[in-house]
Amino acid sequence: MTLALWGDALALARQSVGLSSPNPRVGCLITTAQGEVIGRGFTQQPGGPHAEVVAMEDARAHGHDLHGATAYVTLEPCSHHGRTGPCCDALIAAGIKKVVSSIADPNPLVSGQGFARLRSAGVEVQVGPGAAESRELNIGFFSRMIRRTPWVRLKVAASLDGKTALDNGASQWITSEAARADGHAWRARACAVLTGIGTVLEDNPRLDVRLVETPRQPHLVVVDSRLDTPLDAHLFIAGRDLYIYAAVPNDAKKAALEARGATVIYLPGRTPESSGKVDLAAMLHDLARREINELHVEAGFKLNGSLIRESLVDEFVVYLAPKLIGQGRGMASFGPLTELAQAVPLTFKSTGMLGPDLRILARIPGRDQF
Amino acid sequence: MTLALWGDALALARQSVGLSSPNPRVGCLITTAQGEVIGRGFTQQPGGPHAEVVAMEDARAHGHDLHGATAYVTLEPCSHHGRTGPCCDALIAAGIKKVVSSIADPNPLVSGQGFARLRSAGVEVQVGPGAAESRELNIGFFSRMIRRTPWVRLKVAASLDGKTALDNGASQWITSEAARADGHAWRARACAVLTGIGTVLEDNPRLDVRLVETPRQPHLVVVDSRLDTPLDAHLFIAGRDLYIYAAVPNDAKKAALEARGATVIYLPGRTPESSGKVDLAAMLHDLARREINELHVEAGFKLNGSLIRESLVDEFVVYLAPKLIGQGRGMASFGPLTELAQAVPLTFKSTGMLGPDLRILARIPGRDQF
Repeated sequence: MTLALWGDALALARQSVGLSSPNPRVGCLITTAQGEVIGRGFTQQPGGPHAEVVAMEDARAHGHDLHGATAYVTLEPCSHHGRTGPCCDALIAAGIKKVVSSIADPNPLVSGQGFARLRSAGVEVQVGPGAAESRELNIGFFSRMIRRTPWVRLKVAASLDGKTALDNGASQWITSEAARADGHAWRARACAVLTGIGTVLEDNPRLDVRLVETPRQPHLVVVDSRLDTPLDAHLFIAGRDLYIYAAVPNDAKKAALEARGATVIYLPGRTPESSGKVDLAAMLHDLARREINELHVEAGFKLNGSLIRESLVDEFVVYLAPKLIGQGRGMASFGPLTELAQAVPLTFKSTGMLGPDLRILARIPGRDQF
Repeated sequence: MTLALWGDALALARQSVGLSSPNPRVGCLITTAQGEVIGRGFTQQPGGPHAEVVAMEDARAHGHDLHGATAYVTLEPCSHHGRTGPCCDALIAAGIKKVVSSIADPNPLVSGQGFARLRSAGVEVQVGPGAAESRELNIGFFSRMIRRTPWVRLKVAASLDGKTALDNGASQWITSEAARADGHAWRARACAVLTGIGTVLEDNPRLDVRLVETPRQPHLVVVDSRLDTPLDAHLFIAGRDLYIYAAVPNDAKKAALEARGATVIYLPGRTPESSGKVDLAAMLHDLARREINELHVEAGFKLNGSLIRESLVDEFVVYLAPKLIGQGRGMASFGPLTELAQAVPLTFKSTGMLGPDLRILARIPGRDQF
């Protein structure tokens, strides 16, 4: 029964994906003391109610009394006033008798204080079931709270021989509609999509979510050292933030881009050699400060190579199309290495077909241990 | 019951893999008129008995009378005197009443004549069950008999980003022991392994079967236009044929290589531009004449590229290791293409993990329709 309850609570939490960010994905089930489920909820858009409040409202809407009930919630209930009031207070006020929670909130404003507050109000608290799954579902939120950087997921679509484009730049479309739709689903779950000025100038992409339903568009980040983003680029889309990171100040270009709605941030490298380029590590920290949990990278081989060379990528979503291109552009230009032992190690987390294409999820071992 | 019998007969046929070539892989079950299995066999090494004879001997060794029995055999029984006497005659002489066979032998010396001979002797003949599986198991034999070329399978081991070696040539070992052992199993099932002089000079490989058991070593073929194979190369191994295809005659080198046991064949291209290189298409026809059914290619990106460019490859066995190399050598150098539509199309036939690595079997659509 408890296992099924946790499966249900996690399934609810997954409904927050693409909706709740930058808040964590949380699901909540309310049961009577006898174990009957009387309320279900998941965290809504920022400023909307958290999972616990939605579940309690659901129970009340169906005429249930919450006194003596148990709340199963996939993350520690919040104890602070953020965009909404503290869930702990709402649970206590409702007369909830017991809270079973998967894992402590890594947010230093909460971390353990939610549990303490519940306990001091006489609520029985149990922590643990579903911890790994809840953390994995919120890997970006945990990363931002603990590492102070987003969780960086790099997406590549390539031929079986690892080519992402022809020598002449042609890359539309290497993979199938099914793979592209899946790619949009990964965009949708991220807080922001990242690309480079090379891709902007060459493909003039929108980089928004079109092939799957989404309640909101993820923000867009462009690495554009000299502010070369054209003012008529397709990426200027209302309803999402656009952050352009640059290295070489240019007040006129900055003003023009900001007039188009962009936020321009200068973050040059700190050494004479790197001062003409964006400090990518500093950019990630800045993005974390801007509440970016999961960052979805869709860039060319140069920016991909820089991110990998600087050990800034956590995992990869790779689509391999059943074709061979021969000469062409690779996935990421870094190296050359002098020994195979220097290769970037990965673990294949999952593989599966999407229509005719193969999708591989790969993670750098140990990157999720923080 | 019939389905289970065919599964068993095909399983027997699979035991001929790596043993019977250049003869086809054939399995045979003998049953009584009531359907009780009384004999099992599969085709042995060349010159040894075929599946039908082995199965009949098995039945007799257990004291069974073959009069009135039924033989289930995965390929048409042979009607000609090859290395052994005709199986048809043995079946007729034994008093077999019915022969159920998967598919006609594509060998023009047999093709349908085996069935005709059986029928004219009063044996009931049924053809069809297990045809696709038997043909697929013998794709190399069917290719040699019908297309007059071997079935060409190209094996590549690469990093996830499609690199087979570092820029400095280092390639040992990109994949795991499990993947390498699987690669040896694919070598073992082939009649011959093909490589190029670049690989010989750079890696000095043996290209024999060591990591899995095999009753015999496949032959070795080297594309070596100017006969640069060193006389002390590791590839001179007793017990297998070594064919060196060259384009530029050199009597002294030829004599020295032949003294080491190699067979040197001059097959230069027919145009002034190609006369310094081996005519690869002609080489495949020559290899078919030498009874090579399945040709297993393990070569560098240049020879791989030439074979692909000339449309000589039928399928691919690709091992992808969970690592990224960045700059390095690709799987196959051909192109550059000018549009994506020119990419070599494939179908992913199967994907699966081998230890930490991913194996992908891919086939060029339509190549198996002959």
